[in-house]
Amino acid sequence: MSAERSFHMTPDEFRRYGYAVVDWIADYYKRIESFPVLSRVEPGQIRAALPPQPPTYGEPFEAMLKDVEELILPGLTHWQSPNFFAFFPANASAPAILGELLSAGLGVQGMLWATSPACTELETHVLDWLVDMLALPDKFKSTGSGGGVIQDSASSASLCALLAARERATGYRTNAHGCDGRLVAYASSQTHSSIEKAVKIAGLGRENLRIIEVDEKYAMRPEALARQIAEDKRAGLVPCFVCATVGTTSSNALDPLPEIGQICQQEGVWLHVDAAMCGTAALCPEFRYIHNGLELADSYCFNPHKWMFTNFDCDCFYVADRATLINTLSVLPEYLRNKATESGAVIDYRDWQIPLGRRFRALKLWFVIRHYGVEGLRYHIRRHVELAHAFASWVEADDRFELAAPVPLNLVCFRHKGGDEANLKLMERLNRSGELYLTHTRLGERIVLRFCVGQTNTERRHVERAWSMIQSMADEW
Amino acid sequence: MSAERSFHMTPDEFRRYGYAVVDWIADYYKRIESFPVLSRVEPGQIRAALPPQPPTYGEPFEAMLKDVEELILPGLTHWQSPNFFAFFPANASAPAILGELLSAGLGVQGMLWATSPACTELETHVLDWLVDMLALPDKFKSTGSGGGVIQDSASSASLCALLAARERATGYRTNAHGCDGRLVAYASSQTHSSIEKAVKIAGLGRENLRIIEVDEKYAMRPEALARQIAEDKRAGLVPCFVCATVGTTSSNALDPLPEIGQICQQEGVWLHVDAAMCGTAALCPEFRYIHNGLELADSYCFNPHKWMFTNFDCDCFYVADRATLINTLSVLPEYLRNKATESGAVIDYRDWQIPLGRRFRALKLWFVIRHYGVEGLRYHIRRHVELAHAFASWVEADDRFELAAPVPLNLVCFRHKGGDEANLKLMERLNRSGELYLTHTRLGERIVLRFCVGQTNTERRHVERAWSMIQSMADEW
Repeated sequence: MSAERSFHMTPDEFRRYGYAVVDWIADYYKRIESFPVLSRVEPGQIRAALPPQPPTYGEPFEAMLKDVEELILPGLTHWQSPNFFAFFPANASAPAILGELLSAGLGVQGMLWATSPACTELETHVLDWLVDMLALPDKFKSTGSGGGVIQDSASSASLCALLAARERATGYRTNAHGCDGRLVAYASSQTHSSIEKAVKIAGLGRENLRIIEVDEKYAMRPEALARQIAEDKRAGLVPCFVCATVGTTSSNALDPLPEIGQICQQEGVWLHVDAAMCGTAALCPEFRYIHNGLELADSYCFNPHKWMFTNFDCDCFYVADRATLINTLSVLPEYLRNKATESGAVIDYRDWQIPLGRRFRALKLWFVIRHYGVEGLRYHIRRHVELAHAFASWVEADDRFELAAPVPLNLVCFRHKGGDEANLKLMERLNRSGELYLTHTRLGERIVLRFCVGQTNTERRHVERAWSMIQSMADEW
Repeated sequence: MSAERSFHMTPDEFRRYGYAVVDWIADYYKRIESFPVLSRVEPGQIRAALPPQPPTYGEPFEAMLKDVEELILPGLTHWQSPNFFAFFPANASAPAILGELLSAGLGVQGMLWATSPACTELETHVLDWLVDMLALPDKFKSTGSGGGVIQDSASSASLCALLAARERATGYRTNAHGCDGRLVAYASSQTHSSIEKAVKIAGLGRENLRIIEVDEKYAMRPEALARQIAEDKRAGLVPCFVCATVGTTSSNALDPLPEIGQICQQEGVWLHVDAAMCGTAALCPEFRYIHNGLELADSYCFNPHKWMFTNFDCDCFYVADRATLINTLSVLPEYLRNKATESGAVIDYRDWQIPLGRRFRALKLWFVIRHYGVEGLRYHIRRHVELAHAFASWVEADDRFELAAPVPLNLVCFRHKGGDEANLKLMERLNRSGELYLTHTRLGERIVLRFCVGQTNTERRHVERAWSMIQSMADEW
């Protein structure tokens, strides 16, 4: 059967169009600063430009690339722009993009060790590397009783941690008979919204998520946690899960792990540490203090897809006791049985996650670590932290503005002293300018602007220009 | 700051190495038939070849590609080999790979409409296209009260469906207060294992999943379902969710949707239809009968990453009533608030899935549909079905073998008449030869071999050679 007959691209056509896409991406990064960072399209505008019916016959690849340029590009918010300071970054890099390309080209499924041993073993290996790179507790290594796995996101990692905690607390009875309304989970008012989502998904119920108050630095108050756990126990409830955060979403607050961990150990409650954003900082010895107390945690995650130059999705999730996680999530139908699994000598990552299938995500992570080396990665983390601290010092030196929270790492929470409306108006003007993109949050009762430095290509000039725009727009009213 | 100083690849280096990866992939497909389909490495062999410590300093990209060739390649099971007949396919194609590359290069996050409007709108648009392409009920279109979304897998789609069903049945009380042990879900003995996993995750408990018996074609018996629902209601339980399958994993059995759907409507139970494997067949009018009765379903999914040439991950999940799904999964913290969301005029897909973040997966699906056109896709589906039917006829003509289940589409379940051990031994020999890869299941009490035709590049000669190997190996004892 000829390739022409089959409608498939030949390898040579793939080569030609592959080069064209690579060229397009290289050019995209060269001109990325020329686009408004936040897309300006109106709701429905992109759809209106697309044909209402799918094509009956195939189209030339050139037509698709042309439409990407003309129809899709205006509808993008440019997360890879060095002027992107919104949310947290989802920073990509060239070696990560090429790792994703290779993974797509190979098209292997890593659900079982047997379905592509290299997909599983490279993942285990690189996640063990990262334990050393971040100086995480050894118990998270696969060589002991624990181990790491790549999840799509910290949301999914937290859900897996909660499920394992739920089963540990009930001796796997919940898996068999369902929740009974007595399980309780704990997080602070600053914990990521994914914990509330996980508590709902896992059948605990939102009302059984206790929101623990925070201190003036927006970090969880351990004594309030201890008090609440004691109260719940007295009421006959079953505390099963605490989420502590290393770098909260709103303000990068650092929950006190040693105190929280001690409480969890005493009470026999699973401690999950969510370091989605800030974990990467521990590449640098001077920032490793953020993980003090982590040896008391049962599980941990951080996102190379946020701050370690590995394109989404890549969350690294670790457990100290992999048996509990596997027992929680494993289902073994006949059609997945195989000798390697039955030998017990291999990891089947399908039992470490919600979905069954999984692609070869370790490749991009491996490429990033090898391309930059540990020192190359540290260089960028330090640079981002320095730039954030410089920005914070400029805020402090301008008496129209004030810092709204401590700046431990790369996120600056600040506000114009003119009040909530003034800050929202300032943000909207800045974002509408197209020159940069930042977002807001609420700390205490007040609206606060967030300026996060973490995009791969952000340099000092971008941060300086952003501050100068903020200053001049603040003058305009 | 110079690129050299920053350790980043320059755009020109990206271009050079990008070409190199494209070339490597093109060559991989040219020589893919020369590799043993099922990897021959031993547990631990890949890890043993990797350095125990990560590199302190960056390495040249050439070193990574060399290691992919020498260390990784032997550890792959080649899902894209035309001699892959195992499990279900996870078939990729050139336009899908290039779409994934483009998505990685753009690196946008589609969690909110505002964070890249084109990412959301292209997805909605292409999923509406697919409703027409597969002649699915119009209620699944976004232009009415329903809509579609890309999930990573049918496992995640089923979990989302179950969660929405749980909340509909309890008026959102479960989200608030947790499961109470009274909710019941239903599936057949042939339903995919992900349903049992979902029932555990969602806090219903495995004991509250009723396994409904199947008929001689391995399809769910509607009268048994009706009986079980009535019995559970009499016991004061709350039936909330039925999963019917269009193409079961073991044997491609088709559950009778009209009868099951009628029962679900009468009883007010959510009907989810899992067509992960076979849904794609409905591209061809002659196969659309598989969806008869689908108008009675509340949700539906099928996987372009199985049989529609779109590399993993790409499951298309539809609901008839998007409000229930969104109300089930939505959590709105301040830091995600934005004007577009508040206008109500846009879709925020984070509320349609478990994780928060999401990448631009619609690109690859759009590329596949446009590259092949509807007719090009149909051509391949028909060819795969014809090849499977040819294989089935050869099995029937050889009196050492027998068919073990009907062959509605592209999966042939067959067995050597020599018994379970003979079949397992035959499978192991075939797989160890490296010439092809197939897997087994259990139907009734018997071990059965599964031969699934669905890999992108499988041609008649591959199927013929596989049968000839099966025949000659069966002669050897």
